Amino acid sequence: MPEIHEARRRRAQEKIVEVGADAALITSRQNITYLTGLASSNAAVLIPADGAAVLATDSRYALAAERDCPDLELIIERFVETRLATEATTRGMRVVAFEAHEMTVQRHAELTKTLTLVEFGQAIEELRVSKDPTELELIATACRISDQALSDTFRLIRPGLTERALAAALDRRMAELGAARPAFDTIVASGPNGAIPHHSPVDRPLRRGDLITMDFGAMYGGYNADMTRTVALGEPAGWQREIYDLVATAQRAGIDAARPGADVADVDAAARDLIRDAGHDEHFQHGLGHGIGLEVHEAPLMGYGRTGKLGTRVPVTVEPGVYLPGKGGVRIEDVLVTGDSLHLLTKTTRELLVLLAMETFTWPPRTT
Amino acid sequence: MPEIHEARRRRAQEKIVEVGADAALITSRQNITYLTGLASSNAAVLIPADGAAVLATDSRYALAAERDCPDLELIIERFVETRLATEATTRGMRVVAFEAHEMTVQRHAELTKTLTLVEFGQAIEELRVSKDPTELELIATACRISDQALSDTFRLIRPGLTERALAAALDRRMAELGAARPAFDTIVASGPNGAIPHHSPVDRPLRRGDLITMDFGAMYGGYNADMTRTVALGEPAGWQREIYDLVATAQRAGIDAARPGADVADVDAAARDLIRDAGHDEHFQHGLGHGIGLEVHEAPLMGYGRTGKLGTRVPVTVEPGVYLPGKGGVRIEDVLVTGDSLHLLTKTTRELLVLLAMETFTWPPRTT
Repeated sequence: MPEIHEARRRRAQEKIVEVGADAALITSRQNITYLTGLASSNAAVLIPADGAAVLATDSRYALAAERDCPDLELIIERFVETRLATEATTRGMRVVAFEAHEMTVQRHAELTKTLTLVEFGQAIEELRVSKDPTELELIATACRISDQALSDTFRLIRPGLTERALAAALDRRMAELGAARPAFDTIVASGPNGAIPHHSPVDRPLRRGDLITMDFGAMYGGYNADMTRTVALGEPAGWQREIYDLVATAQRAGIDAARPGADVADVDAAARDLIRDAGHDEHFQHGLGHGIGLEVHEAPLMGYGRTGKLGTRVPVTVEPGVYLPGKGGVRIEDVLVTGDSLHLLTKTTRELLVLLAMETFTWPPRTT
Repeated sequence: MPEIHEARRRRAQEKIVEVGADAALITSRQNITYLTGLASSNAAVLIPADGAAVLATDSRYALAAERDCPDLELIIERFVETRLATEATTRGMRVVAFEAHEMTVQRHAELTKTLTLVEFGQAIEELRVSKDPTELELIATACRISDQALSDTFRLIRPGLTERALAAALDRRMAELGAARPAFDTIVASGPNGAIPHHSPVDRPLRRGDLITMDFGAMYGGYNADMTRTVALGEPAGWQREIYDLVATAQRAGIDAARPGADVADVDAAARDLIRDAGHDEHFQHGLGHGIGLEVHEAPLMGYGRTGKLGTRVPVTVEPGVYLPGKGGVRIEDVLVTGDSLHLLTKTTRELLVLLAMETFTWPPRTT
């Protein structure tokens, strides 16, 4: 849909004029995808303050670029930044805005031999915060795949299955349902491992009495999902129910607070204060959530010390947790889209699921 | 094995002295893994010219760092570069070498407020070129997994199976055999798609008469494999046999030329000249091969215009190809280790495999 990308580039051009540059050289991978539609590991785009953009990528992506970006002037070249710097000079652009958070010192030194570079800040990331309907539909699809994969995987959870096998099953099911790939390395953290927020799955077999946290998401059409559920294998102990109820209540409060116009620190506080009041302040040390889109973690970040207000049509995660060292943990995470009413993209129940698996089982199951 | 990493850091310290710095701030992910053993998406290490190194990473990696790096002073902190810059100042280090090919302009501007930064070049990458026995064993294991996965997947290849399903089967089998993940996005390119060197697998069903190129590899213990085989589905046509034989002959010539002391341009030419002499110069436009280790593509790069000589114990790929637009292509790729004698780590036959699948089949097969 070239017209969508053209509209995005027009908004970028307003930002280029604002910083007083003749053009912007965009080198951040996701920003290039956002502005052109091309997903390439080696590309750059030169956007003049006025006029048509020039996209450079190497021969591996030539066909994709011709197919996805028919509206752009295309240059097939391996050294994309160097070539676009030459193009800028040839076309009389002298002051070029660049992405200082992305460009390396080495590349910058090379380009300043021929160009005057000025900082563009995170101008394109700012444009990306509020999503258009096409983007929201892709994120919603990624979330639907994630929900369905979880639903289809629940019945595999039983004593003896390892964290690693459960993570692989989630990944496989997401792929079967159409995911391009997992959005990030799937987390399965069981029993005491649940106390580690970013635990990598190991060969630990699940045991009766475990809480099991699964944090995962599908990537679809370049856009990401990110959700977490914690389930109990066998009847939960009192402390397990207690922290589950606390996290679920805090998550609901965070979701309710995540409205257009809300300060991100207030959204964080809405959930965090409940956890603090329950005496678990030190057991929740990460932010409440983050924007999601072409990147799994993008603006706005919602955490203690973060500033800014939520806009509309902003997909964000809300993911409080309580982690008890040596014992276990709970995290519940959903993606919602800010707007007039509550719009959750991940829909799996937030009630505590207690899985009463039989003691004896076969693995792999006879029918899946 | 902390002593291995300590020995590597001692060699790094010689380089720090060479550039006249008090310390080096290493921020490249693979270089950090090489020097400390830690695999983290957010870490940095400060190596003084003389004395003990300081590793910083965030709380997600605290347990892994304590386990893998017991010999290092460890700082758990989210803003790793900023914190290590403060540590450097506190410890009286004023001139710090940094990795200009990795550090962003934004980070550099921040750190130069308190430190004098000097370029370290690709000093650590140069240390990484020649591998130690531990590394060679990990790469060999990654290659063994890749060989076995291919062998186990051959029998699935038949008309109707899609490129995407074949790629997924290779990925799944590598995981079952112990791979941490695929080293890169697996390529399956069939029929006319084989003319695109970096084709991404699509839903195209394999057909009788196709050449099918599979380019893939396992990651194991942080180290990568990378191999390619092209097979024929049904009796190959004359042109298919012709380019296969040409590529196989060129690959053998490249392998024979890849010896310690050889100039990388000569290794490239050994294979490329044969392809040129057969009239296919324009159909082989990428380099002949590359070093492999913690990264899939690392020094030395062997291609037209590249310079330098091969050392010993250097794992490199040799991967010539011939690509005929609209018709199809052939690529054959192996990993070898330079040394006194021929040491191939990927062992699958390089003879043209002709798969004579039956016309009728069921998918998925009843027994896999």
